[in-house]
Amino acid sequence: MSAPVLALDIGGTKLAAGIVSPAGDLLASRVDDTHPAWSPAEVIEQLFELSEAALAEAAQEWRDLPAVGLSFGGPVDFPARRTLTCHHLHGWEGLPLAELVEERAGLPVVMDNDANAAALGETVFGAARGFDHVLYLTVSTGIGAGLLLNGHLHRGANSLAGELGHTLVVPDGPACTCGRNGCLEAVASGPAIARQAKAALDQGEASLLQSLPRDQLTAKQVAENAHADPLSARIMARAGEYLGVAIAAAVNLVNPDIVVIGGGLSQAGESLLQPLRDSVARRAVPESVRDLRIVAGALGADSALLGAAALALRRGPGREGTT
Amino acid sequence: MSAPVLALDIGGTKLAAGIVSPAGDLLASRVDDTHPAWSPAEVIEQLFELSEAALAEAAQEWRDLPAVGLSFGGPVDFPARRTLTCHHLHGWEGLPLAELVEERAGLPVVMDNDANAAALGETVFGAARGFDHVLYLTVSTGIGAGLLLNGHLHRGANSLAGELGHTLVVPDGPACTCGRNGCLEAVASGPAIARQAKAALDQGEASLLQSLPRDQLTAKQVAENAHADPLSARIMARAGEYLGVAIAAAVNLVNPDIVVIGGGLSQAGESLLQPLRDSVARRAVPESVRDLRIVAGALGADSALLGAAALALRRGPGREGTT
Repeated sequence: MSAPVLALDIGGTKLAAGIVSPAGDLLASRVDDTHPAWSPAEVIEQLFELSEAALAEAAQEWRDLPAVGLSFGGPVDFPARRTLTCHHLHGWEGLPLAELVEERAGLPVVMDNDANAAALGETVFGAARGFDHVLYLTVSTGIGAGLLLNGHLHRGANSLAGELGHTLVVPDGPACTCGRNGCLEAVASGPAIARQAKAALDQGEASLLQSLPRDQLTAKQVAENAHADPLSARIMARAGEYLGVAIAAAVNLVNPDIVVIGGGLSQAGESLLQPLRDSVARRAVPESVRDLRIVAGALGADSALLGAAALALRRGPGREGTT
Repeated sequence: MSAPVLALDIGGTKLAAGIVSPAGDLLASRVDDTHPAWSPAEVIEQLFELSEAALAEAAQEWRDLPAVGLSFGGPVDFPARRTLTCHHLHGWEGLPLAELVEERAGLPVVMDNDANAAALGETVFGAARGFDHVLYLTVSTGIGAGLLLNGHLHRGANSLAGELGHTLVVPDGPACTCGRNGCLEAVASGPAIARQAKAALDQGEASLLQSLPRDQLTAKQVAENAHADPLSARIMARAGEYLGVAIAAAVNLVNPDIVVIGGGLSQAGESLLQPLRDSVARRAVPESVRDLRIVAGALGADSALLGAAALALRRGPGREGTT
């Protein structure tokens, strides 16, 4: 396949459309905020406006596109081609989204959740290129994972594989958004990191973070200060330690070649990755860790969009498309 | 394939050879103890004696056999067709076992570790028949797992997938044979259960187990008394709880259709399985648990032997054979 594809990304807070070459070059793209009050129809409408603009910039016509790839920021029933729910927007329960976009575009659409899309994107175009067995984690507002085994996305019995964010890592730990306690997401996600920093500052700990407005403190700020601020470094290290607990269990179970850490928090770099690697090395079976690579993602904020493109480029029976 | 195959099982304490029909019927079998002092050559010699006897009983000739399946009680480098080590016997490091048996038998041999073999056996002939995504656990002296995804064994980057026994479940918990602390195997294997029972009896807890010789107390005795003895029931329930912690993490990650519990401890039945199910339900993502089955294995002590047969019956490129 030599023609570029259209890639669409419906996230919790933003929409994106991109024209992507088979080599993974983003030829043109448009991004916009979503509005929490928008209906699915309004989101789709806005996505097509972004698509038109991106197509125009890339000097492409709808009729030249072989397919559309679509990343959705919530769980997806892959064989049914429906969204299951969205944690940030309303009206997406059981929506036949792939079909709706397909009808509107007049092109075949392949849809998956954003963690799977990003995992595929990093494998086809990014940090995990050339590896057969890939565990991808996105560490951001939430924590999710995508698993490529023998080069193909593993989706599982209910298209729910990759729910690593709700692995128990701290027995009787902090409350999670899912209603349970001590989930990885409750101790190592962006909001958890920001909360831990705020709590330490409230207790009067000395820190460079003391100069920042405490009620708007973000994990990004903690990550940015980790190279110089001991409190920030300690909080990032603890998040890495917890991520390592869940990753070690996953490494023991599936024995991947490589673990790729994506999502906003991956920009923290070694302040997160080194404690994470140490934690995995202490906890996973030594023979499974010996040749294991643990790296930051290479595609940054475009991972899901480029992964959506990869879904479209690799579509077909037994590949990443409809089966 | 309509002819029966020869199945071989090299365990830590016993050897077995069986003639197995394509439908999974064990037409004839021979079992013997291994001797810790035996060299690999002596083990192979004894395996062939058992094979001759089983062939004679089933009225089969070597030349009628299409293939041999071999289950090994330790890690195996699957593509290299070598054993990596054996925790119970000496001289198996890097041994080209499949080739040695192949030369001796004059037949193609497919070899895998016992947890993978048993997982395949339960999927082809046992409790997981008809399911695409299967997590199999053997709970015995050790704890191991085998994973079938989309109907095929998932072996991973170093043929080490399934090391669920060394998942951390009790931070700073009891020492494990692997040198770390708090692994699942250190708190829920047969020896761990026997140790917990002995410790409780040493502290004077009232129990039906008080009448048994305390130094030879086995997990089997604890399991057998669990229906009537509160201490035994509590210990089995705790083992189920811990198993559930590791299984929940695995369920979140790979979203299987069914979890099959095999190995000696699975004979404890509901005294182990019900607390295990409750533990998984409390800890895994609700949508991944809703349709999940958690059952005891159907093949009992023959699971690895029948799985070895399934390896031979399903051999070939891209299946369970050499790839």
